[in-house]
Amino acid sequence: MTPSHDDPRFLRSREAIVAAARELLVAGGPGAVSHARVAQQAGIARATVYRHWPRTDQLLAEAMATVPLPFFAAPDLPTRDWLVRELTALARQLDHHDVRVVATTLASTALWEDGMDVRRAGFADLLARRLADALEAARDRGEVDLRTAPRDAAALAIGPLHYRATIERGTTDDDVVATVVDSLGRWR
Amino acid sequence: MTPSHDDPRFLRSREAIVAAARELLVAGGPGAVSHARVAQQAGIARATVYRHWPRTDQLLAEAMATVPLPFFAAPDLPTRDWLVRELTALARQLDHHDVRVVATTLASTALWEDGMDVRRAGFADLLARRLADALEAARDRGEVDLRTAPRDAAALAIGPLHYRATIERGTTDDDVVATVVDSLGRWR
Repeated sequence: MTPSHDDPRFLRSREAIVAAARELLVAGGPGAVSHARVAQQAGIARATVYRHWPRTDQLLAEAMATVPLPFFAAPDLPTRDWLVRELTALARQLDHHDVRVVATTLASTALWEDGMDVRRAGFADLLARRLADALEAARDRGEVDLRTAPRDAAALAIGPLHYRATIERGTTDDDVVATVVDSLGRWR
Repeated sequence: MTPSHDDPRFLRSREAIVAAARELLVAGGPGAVSHARVAQQAGIARATVYRHWPRTDQLLAEAMATVPLPFFAAPDLPTRDWLVRELTALARQLDHHDVRVVATTLASTALWEDGMDVRRAGFADLLARRLADALEAARDRGEVDLRTAPRDAAALAIGPLHYRATIERGTTDDDVVATVVDSLGRWR
């Protein structure tokens, strides 16, 4: 009998598969995520892995998409201090090799796979909207005179951290975070 | 007889191989660059491709490394105008799909291959040095009071363009370029 999608065993095996795929992804890159290796790593029959995700790229996308994206989710006051804290937290996350791997691999896999490109666009749009909303609210409260269109804030604020981590492979210090926050507007 | 390395036929076949590898890279991503496909695309015997580059990853690195890197190479005065021009030119390059492909693939392949990581580090260091040197010269000339360490200029100036192109898959407009240039210092 084929298990139904809310069968606890089905959900447990699904979680184990995604966890195994994420481990393989972080350790060996996208090429390391195959049905056979995921099955071995998760201690699950290969046929079960195929039943959940018939294609490897779907499995890889799932592994990447389950990396949580907590940044800029809950704005706090004053907005400038919150932005500094959030960007500092993001910079510290980007110090980790595995986070750099996921950020880099998401962008490159999205070039060749439509499904992954949808994920990339979703992440990018989520971050851009969160930052734009927070900055517009800060402006409406009189906290800041914006120097830039709110939808550009993600590129201006996250871009330098992302470049430092994925291209320069270095760490973003407090001075860069402060420069980035001040480039967005004149804070009162 | 094995041709010597300065034999014109050897150099011609080498150029044809790199050109073919670059075309395959841009059209189909790193997975499309194989000895067999490169040989077919270049109209050259597969054994010749192997003689030049015994390993696929070396061939791929060569294809990527031959994408020229003209940006920030020749500072001009006033420095602010030159920076705006150079960043605008870089943004227009990053509007092209093939340039996004190379930028993205370089970062992701560098995660798994030491040879490619050397290339990545070389590109990153070259850009950072060119920008730092230009800003220090501008400061010494009294053109600008720098807000940031010169070595952070590449992340601050290129990062937003790179993020916009490779993560958001959008275009960088003049306002973002101006914001980025003004984030580096107070221009006189």
